[in-house]
Amino acid sequence: MKTYQEMSRNELLKERNRLEVEFEKIKAKGLKLDMSRGKPGAAQLNLSMGLMDVLSSESELVGVQGTDCRNYGVLDGIIEAKQLLAAMTEVPVDNIIIFGNSSLNIMFDMVAHAYSKGVCGAKPWCKYDEPVKFLCPVPGYDRHFAITEYFGIEMINIPLNDDGPDMDLVEKYVNNDPLVKGIWCVPKYSNPDGIVYSDEVVKRFANLKPAAEDFRIFWDNAYCIHHLYPDDQAEILEILHECEKAGHPDMVYKFCSTSKVTFPGSGIAAMGTSKRNIADFKKQMTVQTIGHDKVNQLRHVKYFGDIEGMKKHMEKHAEILRPKFEAVLNILESELGELGIGTWRKPKGGYFISFYALDGCAKEIVEKAKEAGVVMTGAGATYPYGKDPHDSNIRIAPSFPTPEELEEAAKIFVLSVKLVSADKLLETKG
Amino acid sequence: MKTYQEMSRNELLKERNRLEVEFEKIKAKGLKLDMSRGKPGAAQLNLSMGLMDVLSSESELVGVQGTDCRNYGVLDGIIEAKQLLAAMTEVPVDNIIIFGNSSLNIMFDMVAHAYSKGVCGAKPWCKYDEPVKFLCPVPGYDRHFAITEYFGIEMINIPLNDDGPDMDLVEKYVNNDPLVKGIWCVPKYSNPDGIVYSDEVVKRFANLKPAAEDFRIFWDNAYCIHHLYPDDQAEILEILHECEKAGHPDMVYKFCSTSKVTFPGSGIAAMGTSKRNIADFKKQMTVQTIGHDKVNQLRHVKYFGDIEGMKKHMEKHAEILRPKFEAVLNILESELGELGIGTWRKPKGGYFISFYALDGCAKEIVEKAKEAGVVMTGAGATYPYGKDPHDSNIRIAPSFPTPEELEEAAKIFVLSVKLVSADKLLETKG
Repeated sequence: MKTYQEMSRNELLKERNRLEVEFEKIKAKGLKLDMSRGKPGAAQLNLSMGLMDVLSSESELVGVQGTDCRNYGVLDGIIEAKQLLAAMTEVPVDNIIIFGNSSLNIMFDMVAHAYSKGVCGAKPWCKYDEPVKFLCPVPGYDRHFAITEYFGIEMINIPLNDDGPDMDLVEKYVNNDPLVKGIWCVPKYSNPDGIVYSDEVVKRFANLKPAAEDFRIFWDNAYCIHHLYPDDQAEILEILHECEKAGHPDMVYKFCSTSKVTFPGSGIAAMGTSKRNIADFKKQMTVQTIGHDKVNQLRHVKYFGDIEGMKKHMEKHAEILRPKFEAVLNILESELGELGIGTWRKPKGGYFISFYALDGCAKEIVEKAKEAGVVMTGAGATYPYGKDPHDSNIRIAPSFPTPEELEEAAKIFVLSVKLVSADKLLETKG
Repeated sequence: MKTYQEMSRNELLKERNRLEVEFEKIKAKGLKLDMSRGKPGAAQLNLSMGLMDVLSSESELVGVQGTDCRNYGVLDGIIEAKQLLAAMTEVPVDNIIIFGNSSLNIMFDMVAHAYSKGVCGAKPWCKYDEPVKFLCPVPGYDRHFAITEYFGIEMINIPLNDDGPDMDLVEKYVNNDPLVKGIWCVPKYSNPDGIVYSDEVVKRFANLKPAAEDFRIFWDNAYCIHHLYPDDQAEILEILHECEKAGHPDMVYKFCSTSKVTFPGSGIAAMGTSKRNIADFKKQMTVQTIGHDKVNQLRHVKYFGDIEGMKKHMEKHAEILRPKFEAVLNILESELGELGIGTWRKPKGGYFISFYALDGCAKEIVEKAKEAGVVMTGAGATYPYGKDPHDSNIRIAPSFPTPEELEEAAKIFVLSVKLVSADKLLETKG
């Protein structure tokens, strides 16, 4: 089979007209499908219904240290919740704070704290005459970029390779520019590419020699136990320990949550970091709140027991998610595999498939799919300021639709890719 | 009976020695009692155990608008939670945002937002060369003052009268000084005095003509439905509506929570304010979080049904709290009523009794009580910077101890008051 590039103008015109007929037929169905956000589907939510029944008597609401979880107190989390999420994020129990329902909210608060008060006594970022800077491996998570944009922090794109960010570039910026204060990382099954950072990349992170004393790695291990294949699970080096070994124990903030383990919005979230960073942030935390929801902390502990219980639970998620990922990947492969108009990776975990269209086509493809009733993440969203310099990357979120909807949606997507790509190539052949 | 002031030096010395013997006897018991914080007691927490059982099936977790409360989405609260807390805080449903578990956290975030980004587009407070200012009716809530202190905001004491803050002074500051950006208010059953703002005071608030466009009243209606006497409930004018009538719809942020209705730390909290303020803060909120805990919102709605259900529930709290307040008040009355060494109000709601010792005695009384095993709120805590200019005010929190413990604790407290006051007066009579 010929790629679109290899086709003659006439062949491509014919193909284009055939696609248009097909597209109009599907469009007429008036579908409403959503592949835009990394939301678990209903079948996944049903897995955690047992969570609703683990606490009902007074005695069940008392923590292992005798804390009545129904009352005020315990700023940084009950010990059993710390144990559970410390195991999840692979840090010692003294290196963790349990927060509320959202790791995103913790990240926002850490940036806000640095902006208004300063990290560990350093100059607050709001007091600089020029904007401070963050490095942003791209493509990445739009909500990370939204936080730094909100605080007027200048964002610098860093290309992501198959083993993690371009570390030559990261080292160049971090080790030389005192205005570079942070980097956003999703080290395992990155959003959206599903990239897993190699041991060498993690070690190079730990051995950075920041020009800024208040430089921090924002290590959002959102998909730490979110594998698709029980027999092929990615492992990454534990960065806090690596930072300690390299003599920079304070350089990393690790984030995790149970949002995609139990119920998004009703889970628990945590930050793992050095004791100095914990002491620093607790100065704010003690002013900000009397404490987070300990009943919900206890609920999660009672439901899972320990990290092994949580990992077993994640295998059930994988059973539901795997066929969805594979359905999309199969359609991409069978419909686009030989046409030369798109590339993608095959992620082994996480929530997304990252598609790279021909340069200059992503926005139009998303528009086209929308015409036929399929909502995709906005093109550009995976880049700071919403600007994909190549207008190429599209994030596909296969988790929420039912398998039947997903197949329909994926077919509309590939049809949109073909149509827009054909148009684009016809321009150049014109 | 003579007051301590009327006693001769010899009479007072004799009294003092008698008290000391009594004190040493109690001290020898090695008690551990806590009247320091406004925590509900276990009997109160037991009232809400039904909350644990209202959600168990999938269909119960769907909101009235079809929202699956187990999944992401709905930034500002499910409609039924808005209805419940809008009724609680007496604003229209379009004027409310539901947050997480803590109204204190909302207040912190509103100050942080003003500090780092600015209120409705005004200059961020962090960009001023000199500190901005807050008015602080005193005595007041230590955690309010901690927020403004944290952001380096200068706090100005405003005396609290029986009907609310000294409004002449409030008007003088607010209407003339553009650096005055806010005021902390607990308008009903104030912390710690139990003062209820009169209609005239509320109207004068609504008719302020702030020199600063970004001046806001932080109206923490923490005890809005927290009455002690079902037949004698305080009502205050609804300030948002009054501000609208006066042409200043954006001047107030109202806060409320269910912390002392269901479970502290596991309740839901809300802010009521103008639509312009809501739109302004949502710009931050949408960056900060995907949404708060909707399952817990729904749990509260299912448990109470509506505001009437909540009010009935509060009557049960009152039945538990009333005897505790009365026990302390009776001991104060019988032991100190005629000695001229302290005054106090009789609150009709809220969580505290506010005691005024002779000037210069509060710190020593709290120390003395601690010697005998009773923890009180630190003297000075009810004033900005922890500095009570008269060293007189002590906040008594009678809610947490059992009735038996409370009686014991109150007796130690009055004994401490007598001892320290006698010493103080002996100095002057020396």
